[in-house]
Amino acid sequence: MTQPSDKALVPFVSVDNMMRLIHHVGIDAMLRDLASYIEADFHRWELFDKTPRVASHSDVGVIELMPTSDGEAYGFKYVNGHPKNTREGLQTVTAFGLLADVYTGYPVLLTEMTLLTAMRTAATSAMAAKYLAPAGADTMAMIGNGAQSEFQSLAMRAICGVTTIRLYDTDPAATAKCAANLAGTGLRVISCASPEEAIEGAQILTTCTADKQNAKILTDNMVGPGVHINAIGGDCPGKTELAAGILNRSEVFVEYPPQTRIEGEIQQMAADFPVTELWQVITGSAKGRRDAKQITLFDSVGFAIEDFSALRYIRDKVKNTDFFYELDMLADPDDPRDLFGMLQRARTT
Amino acid sequence: MTQPSDKALVPFVSVDNMMRLIHHVGIDAMLRDLASYIEADFHRWELFDKTPRVASHSDVGVIELMPTSDGEAYGFKYVNGHPKNTREGLQTVTAFGLLADVYTGYPVLLTEMTLLTAMRTAATSAMAAKYLAPAGADTMAMIGNGAQSEFQSLAMRAICGVTTIRLYDTDPAATAKCAANLAGTGLRVISCASPEEAIEGAQILTTCTADKQNAKILTDNMVGPGVHINAIGGDCPGKTELAAGILNRSEVFVEYPPQTRIEGEIQQMAADFPVTELWQVITGSAKGRRDAKQITLFDSVGFAIEDFSALRYIRDKVKNTDFFYELDMLADPDDPRDLFGMLQRARTT
Repeated sequence: MTQPSDKALVPFVSVDNMMRLIHHVGIDAMLRDLASYIEADFHRWELFDKTPRVASHSDVGVIELMPTSDGEAYGFKYVNGHPKNTREGLQTVTAFGLLADVYTGYPVLLTEMTLLTAMRTAATSAMAAKYLAPAGADTMAMIGNGAQSEFQSLAMRAICGVTTIRLYDTDPAATAKCAANLAGTGLRVISCASPEEAIEGAQILTTCTADKQNAKILTDNMVGPGVHINAIGGDCPGKTELAAGILNRSEVFVEYPPQTRIEGEIQQMAADFPVTELWQVITGSAKGRRDAKQITLFDSVGFAIEDFSALRYIRDKVKNTDFFYELDMLADPDDPRDLFGMLQRARTT
Repeated sequence: MTQPSDKALVPFVSVDNMMRLIHHVGIDAMLRDLASYIEADFHRWELFDKTPRVASHSDVGVIELMPTSDGEAYGFKYVNGHPKNTREGLQTVTAFGLLADVYTGYPVLLTEMTLLTAMRTAATSAMAAKYLAPAGADTMAMIGNGAQSEFQSLAMRAICGVTTIRLYDTDPAATAKCAANLAGTGLRVISCASPEEAIEGAQILTTCTADKQNAKILTDNMVGPGVHINAIGGDCPGKTELAAGILNRSEVFVEYPPQTRIEGEIQQMAADFPVTELWQVITGSAKGRRDAKQITLFDSVGFAIEDFSALRYIRDKVKNTDFFYELDMLADPDDPRDLFGMLQRARTT
């Protein structure tokens, strides 16, 4: 067997190692860490290479590549979105990601990102809520109790101090699953029979449902003043969760307008519908919540920079640990012009 | 340790396994196989999702993602291009690729593609030469004796019947390396001291040099009638190898015009410079070589469909072999909505 040089080896974090790492760090601590990395990258938002994700659509779903770079590191995520997968026993969303060195072009990390995306999505929501939710918010309605719901709940507790979660899903089995998973986490969990019941007394309304349609999970008359809406599930063309009337009464915050106008809740609105970029709130160049009566709405679709932050975090965190192993993924002959010679020498083995 | 389900496992072909596979199949046989797969995909060119590659440029190089889909499978390649890497003992180009199932969005193959790209590039060149080179062509000038040169030489022999290779490189050490690697392959190899000497008596002129500049490896007066030029090295903005005068006297064939006009030799020419799409020659809807005097020029920049073909080939070829192993890359809980439960259950291990 030909021994590859160390440059040929790419550290790989498997699903199993990601789960071990999450438990080693602690879920709450990792959610806070991820929010810090994301917040740091939102602070230097302007220096990133930004491009809307590169999507390949089919009748049943989408496969996307989400690249970005800060000039030193380059990252991308592969992610699919197939709402019908759940009915077939598969994940709606699976993902993996890669970080590379811009100077050499060589990858430096390959990692599972299904779990990591769940973690970074929740961390991003909680980071936004930290800036936008009304002071003293302690109750969140969690509408849609699928794969993202527990992560959202724990991140809102770890980062925003939420203590009570009010669950609702069209499928009571999903709510039961989420409630069971959150039992013992210290959160007060209340299972509700309707969306109206779920939002009672909640200052943060999180919507995260999976059906690909223009739905009205929240109708206009359900949303009173002074709440923060964290809209996660409106994240591709033809998939929205909120009535347009809510958007008209809200101050809408987005990640990257060119992408959100295509994929987010605001795809329902005119092309010049006013939005505020979240990074500007974080740097202080734009206002977040103005008063206690305002409705703030984070129209979140997920942006490549959040994945980049998560990849940076994993790279930093797994250094000098056994939470990864090395993949022989890059051909790297001793003489770089002698790729063929390397191949020839492997023949005798 | 939590056992991942089989859907969570992605077959991975390492560099070592790719080298084993190439020798198992045989280099010549694999080059011919790859050319067949590529030709089959050029035949159904119109049904592919086509997009110019997604490039992230820096001062020293570029990192690119090259996605495409035929509606059933989706493939992409990650590839860097860093001409300065060679001076630092690294590969100019490294690559890996992935194939996924469009219906589920789940990856079905991850593979090294540095070697595979060298193989598919050579197979594509030879496939084009089969249609475009003058009848009876048996001699190729190989200008630029870097990592691609041996693969080009062997593909032209395996697919087009070339028997003599005339080598030239500005660095005699590169020529010596290439000549040594080709010794014993049955090719007649002649090392030349100048490009002029290299092209003497050659019906196929292959240029494949690495410097990122607008170079004139072939000047107008060097190229006589009746040859086929296989221009490989002009493959990114600011990087060309041929004098414009040659292009004006040639019939130029390209892979995907929107990409080649940015990256290929024709970036030097007006936006409406006439070109023929190679796939149309292969399907018979456009003419290839018209007569023995014509200069044909394949302005090759490499296109995602060629990588897709190569990925399809590797997927088919490694089935039921030990040339791959499985990566635990996709989180896949038994209940797809219970990602958190899977994570929680891993805690006790």
